[in-house]
Amino acid sequence: MADPQSRTTGKRLAVVGAGAVGGAVVDLASEYGHTITAFADSTSAAIDPNGIDTDAVLTRKDETGTVGESDSSVAVDATYDVLIEATPTTLGDAQPGFSHLRTALERDRDVVLANKGPVAERYADVQQVLHDSDGSLRFEATVGGAIPVLSTLEDISPAQVTAVRGVLNGTANFILSRMATEGINYEHVLAEAQDLGVAEADPAFDVEGTDAALKCVILANVLSTDNREYTLADATVDGITNIPGSALELAAEEGRTIRLVGEATPTGVHVGPRLIPQNTALAVTGTRNIVQLETTNAGQLNLSGRGAGGPETASAILADVSRL
Amino acid sequence: MADPQSRTTGKRLAVVGAGAVGGAVVDLASEYGHTITAFADSTSAAIDPNGIDTDAVLTRKDETGTVGESDSSVAVDATYDVLIEATPTTLGDAQPGFSHLRTALERDRDVVLANKGPVAERYADVQQVLHDSDGSLRFEATVGGAIPVLSTLEDISPAQVTAVRGVLNGTANFILSRMATEGINYEHVLAEAQDLGVAEADPAFDVEGTDAALKCVILANVLSTDNREYTLADATVDGITNIPGSALELAAEEGRTIRLVGEATPTGVHVGPRLIPQNTALAVTGTRNIVQLETTNAGQLNLSGRGAGGPETASAILADVSRL
Repeated sequence: MADPQSRTTGKRLAVVGAGAVGGAVVDLASEYGHTITAFADSTSAAIDPNGIDTDAVLTRKDETGTVGESDSSVAVDATYDVLIEATPTTLGDAQPGFSHLRTALERDRDVVLANKGPVAERYADVQQVLHDSDGSLRFEATVGGAIPVLSTLEDISPAQVTAVRGVLNGTANFILSRMATEGINYEHVLAEAQDLGVAEADPAFDVEGTDAALKCVILANVLSTDNREYTLADATVDGITNIPGSALELAAEEGRTIRLVGEATPTGVHVGPRLIPQNTALAVTGTRNIVQLETTNAGQLNLSGRGAGGPETASAILADVSRL
Repeated sequence: MADPQSRTTGKRLAVVGAGAVGGAVVDLASEYGHTITAFADSTSAAIDPNGIDTDAVLTRKDETGTVGESDSSVAVDATYDVLIEATPTTLGDAQPGFSHLRTALERDRDVVLANKGPVAERYADVQQVLHDSDGSLRFEATVGGAIPVLSTLEDISPAQVTAVRGVLNGTANFILSRMATEGINYEHVLAEAQDLGVAEADPAFDVEGTDAALKCVILANVLSTDNREYTLADATVDGITNIPGSALELAAEEGRTIRLVGEATPTGVHVGPRLIPQNTALAVTGTRNIVQLETTNAGQLNLSGRGAGGPETASAILADVSRL
């Protein structure tokens, strides 16, 4: 803490994945003193060991759909200190994210993940690759967007944390919040959320609880004190698609509301709709997320903020880079 | 994050100050893998380069009021990796805390502060000593007890934070909460708080806003981007002693309540009673604290938890030790 401003020394970053998160990292990196030496989407890449022209590349991506003239696959083999893996989360084999991570770690480079797949579905494989590497791995952005969940867990020590629970999916929370305040049905609010861009055209990942469950699986892996590996298959998951508007009305009559709550303890992962007293910490509204850490010595810590969004998630990624 | 459980390697700690916080650090250190090699109160010290018997020393302190046979002053010159400075916060010259910090840093040891004095009243002097030392300094426990305020600020970079505000004094917040819910006057609630041990016999430090202001001054020093030093003299401070019960009743009629809110921005420090909408994040009840960070890229982050207490503050100190 001597001089926090100068703590982050500039690093060379390769960013794989050119969606909202990858694009925001490329856009913001120079603000944090870093240089982007490689940037890839699914079909192309821009590479320059001295730093790509980020404005030009982001404009090109907007206008043409590609980021550069090189083949996409060359990015992970380019010159960089840290690989930022921001391709879409995939289940099962977690590809291509896992291969990107492995290539970078085998080169003894550091890796920062935005992609939940490798640490949710293949945590033991990731630990094995990490064990054989001089590189480090961080993945704050995979849980709770801008909220410093994993770094707080790390600082206070996972052994001191008895449970983590939270509202970890902004889309589901937006829908439940609107159902409660407007008294309208799930289908109507979902259509509204899709119009606003808060829900995807295929909302299953969010409304069926999969996304929240992946985040809780990651937390369970970090909390696990006996090296047990958790995957999505170990989680019990219920979504919000079957909640009638009348359930929220009944809850409100008793001063309660319904939230999609995920919980990770050292022994399991559960995600489902829960009755929550109104005006308490877990009853966040809209797209905000909240995480509660139950600790042995420090009581309950509540951390809340924006759980998604390009710049918000990029902020968590760049915080990880500064902690490497 | 490869294996967070094993991240903390055991350190030798010297703890100066044997109040609730210093005692809790001594009590909990072994849980985190550390050894206590020196422990001092204001009149005596226990010293053993191989580790003191912490249970015996804490029992002795309870029974006799002293921690050992050695002179108190030998602790800072003993064998240790990290000095934990937990003597009472003093204003102005911040002694004896400042001298303890200087001695340890001049020996190129690391220092973790629970004492607010050195970083609130002599931040520039501390930076000078730090500049000439190979040791590091951390002071998470000085702001918000168990809440990871400074480490979050450090991770997301102070340059990205435009303001920090919060409810940072549990005693004042307990009194305001009780005044609002019970409709009783300041003097009555203060007496109750003193009976419960929530307020000191001389409550001035808490109820006049000094304690909250010192925390905000520390935040301003960390946020300062132009090396400007802040001290308590730079803060505008109002306390809660003149708030009539009727003010809280009037506030409640409009769906609001009153909280003692402190704010630090890169340009100043202000502490005073503020009207806050009920059931919003800043309206925490009882002795809980909350801190809101306004950031450039990550929106607003809210962190809340226990702002005081021996084990809670010790938890923050031991998190600092793990980050050294």
